[in-house]
Amino acid sequence: MTKLRRGVSEIFPEQLDSKSPDDNFNERLAQSNQPLRIKFGIDPTGTDIHLGHSVVFRKLRDFQDAGHTAVLIIGDFTARIGDPTGKSEVRKQLTTQQVQQNAQTYLDQVRPILDFDTPGRLEIRYNSEWLSQLDLAKILDLLSTMTVGQMLAKEGFALRYEKEAPIYLHEFLYPIMQGYDSVAVEADVELGGTDQKFNLAVGRDLQRYFKQKPQFGLLMPILIGTDGVQKMSKSLGNYVGLSEDALTMYSKLEKIPDDLIIQYFELLTKLPLDGLPENPRERQKLLALDVVSQYHGKEAAKDAQKAALNLTGGNAKQADAVPEFSLTEVEFPAKLFYILNASGLCKSSSEARRQMQGGGVRLDGEQITDVNLIFDSIDDLNGRVLQLGKKKFVRLVG
Amino acid sequence: MTKLRRGVSEIFPEQLDSKSPDDNFNERLAQSNQPLRIKFGIDPTGTDIHLGHSVVFRKLRDFQDAGHTAVLIIGDFTARIGDPTGKSEVRKQLTTQQVQQNAQTYLDQVRPILDFDTPGRLEIRYNSEWLSQLDLAKILDLLSTMTVGQMLAKEGFALRYEKEAPIYLHEFLYPIMQGYDSVAVEADVELGGTDQKFNLAVGRDLQRYFKQKPQFGLLMPILIGTDGVQKMSKSLGNYVGLSEDALTMYSKLEKIPDDLIIQYFELLTKLPLDGLPENPRERQKLLALDVVSQYHGKEAAKDAQKAALNLTGGNAKQADAVPEFSLTEVEFPAKLFYILNASGLCKSSSEARRQMQGGGVRLDGEQITDVNLIFDSIDDLNGRVLQLGKKKFVRLVG
Repeated sequence: MTKLRRGVSEIFPEQLDSKSPDDNFNERLAQSNQPLRIKFGIDPTGTDIHLGHSVVFRKLRDFQDAGHTAVLIIGDFTARIGDPTGKSEVRKQLTTQQVQQNAQTYLDQVRPILDFDTPGRLEIRYNSEWLSQLDLAKILDLLSTMTVGQMLAKEGFALRYEKEAPIYLHEFLYPIMQGYDSVAVEADVELGGTDQKFNLAVGRDLQRYFKQKPQFGLLMPILIGTDGVQKMSKSLGNYVGLSEDALTMYSKLEKIPDDLIIQYFELLTKLPLDGLPENPRERQKLLALDVVSQYHGKEAAKDAQKAALNLTGGNAKQADAVPEFSLTEVEFPAKLFYILNASGLCKSSSEARRQMQGGGVRLDGEQITDVNLIFDSIDDLNGRVLQLGKKKFVRLVG
Repeated sequence: MTKLRRGVSEIFPEQLDSKSPDDNFNERLAQSNQPLRIKFGIDPTGTDIHLGHSVVFRKLRDFQDAGHTAVLIIGDFTARIGDPTGKSEVRKQLTTQQVQQNAQTYLDQVRPILDFDTPGRLEIRYNSEWLSQLDLAKILDLLSTMTVGQMLAKEGFALRYEKEAPIYLHEFLYPIMQGYDSVAVEADVELGGTDQKFNLAVGRDLQRYFKQKPQFGLLMPILIGTDGVQKMSKSLGNYVGLSEDALTMYSKLEKIPDDLIIQYFELLTKLPLDGLPENPRERQKLLALDVVSQYHGKEAAKDAQKAALNLTGGNAKQADAVPEFSLTEVEFPAKLFYILNASGLCKSSSEARRQMQGGGVRLDGEQITDVNLIFDSIDDLNGRVLQLGKKKFVRLVG
């Protein structure tokens, strides 16, 4: 129970003095003889997931570990139809194949987080299963459960209506579709970010309308990005991607600002918050090691830690300064000394060979002295860090 | 052309200086090589039609007579689903059978107005044909063509929103469904009362969205009722029903107030307005005779006129004063003299027989002297007027 509440921003409705399992979350958990159904919906529109997204997935895993069923809803229906007005960036129309691919990429990335294997712990559903079956009569029925006033009270809409920015009628349907997903899967709890409160509440209303027990909404905080200022987002560049290599991940995480780090521990690890190192630098390293371990395993995390140490001489601040060298102009197979020269780390091929023989060259922190070392393709080097002496680095990119 | 514009309140868009048949009604008529499709939609929710409804049907007939196709849309879809909130009187949920019956009754009543027989002049469509085929994707598409602001600008909604009276989301769909009917039947013109302007404009927008030529809206005035004050309506009692008997119809119409009568002539007859009698009483009689002829034929109309004259001694004002006598307590078969007594027209059965023999008794203006005249059932007398002497009347009702 304590574990399920770790990091949670809000559970609603939460009337702790009530004995009714409809509005007391503890009662609902206690009275349930069978696994609860914990809903979380994702949009298969993008493919790169970052630690910000992982917050809710980790909470979903907590429920799985407590014996409940994670019901992961893939919003393929809306992804396929897009936004008819074409005004929305996130509602581009995708083909069925694109949606399938995106969903698969999505699932691959969250595989380290969720329990995919224990029977009964994960149910993956595509919402086209029920949304494509809705006809006009049913849609009129769904729409009749809400008023224009309620919809316009929603933060996003209220602001736009006030500013006289156009709100297209179909936009009112999106919260209702998400709410109807809860009816379709008979959710007991729906997880979401704090920005999802309205939509989760619509789910409750619709479930009541269809004579189901209304779900609880469980809201998780929105993770602040590595810049310590804005919410983590790919477009802002302040993100740590779940599919990034161990060294990149480690390098980003070991620089998390101290005023943010407790929340990162709370939301991204299982470490007890009262046993953290007192030294800020040690806290950063522990966070980075723990999180990288989750996605790449303990060994790779330790290697990344070592490589990062080598890269920066122990000074994490330098890590952003690593310049990149594009391998696209290099003809493969290619010898390493050639790349040392081409990248500008050495002034000539002969200097490069000399430096290698003298022990001054490292690849991802590992000393390389074999001047004949050859790489077959760009993929063998992409993302790795090439180092000359103690202070000169380039990151090789494809 | 002049005929098509008789009584019309507004045609839109109407840019008379434009050469484009998309916004110049005359051009559209002139350029069309084939019959235009003139849409009118009806709700098969009630069954009794009155002269107020006939105004638009008569205009539809004008278009038929000009060689165009009347496309009569029966809104069976919405009638069958009703209003999910149950708040609307006119959106009660009806069974398919009820809808069919109502539609049939409706059609029977407008049979005297429309041309049902000339090939190609009438197309009857049920909107469930296309509305029941709509899925969520298509509905999102339709809804995306309009904004919340446009919808709330609609008179009925604006007022309610201002008053903070709840507007349910599904209500926004009704104008869109009506508009989509225009797309489905590819209407060139849609007829309606002046209160339908918004809905007809939605039809234009949707047709444009689906790359069709947008329809023209042709609005007819709302007929004022026989009280000369409020719009004609069954619930207000100021109506003349199309299925009422000739005498009832005549009696109501010969009392139309003089300040209303020109509009009645314009909207309910084909008589030239500049050749009407100068005497107000003669105008009333001409109007009544003409309209009754349309629904009951010339002979019946003349008979009704005679009966009405007998009823009132030529003084139309008395006609409202006809009291009613309910036949429900009378045991059938019943002799007429018995009813003369029971109704209070005569003080005893013997007086009744005497009056009949003396020629003082009339039924619907026809003298009855046979004291043995017997009626088998209530239906034989329901609605007829029983008269004693020149001044005493009762209307027999079932």
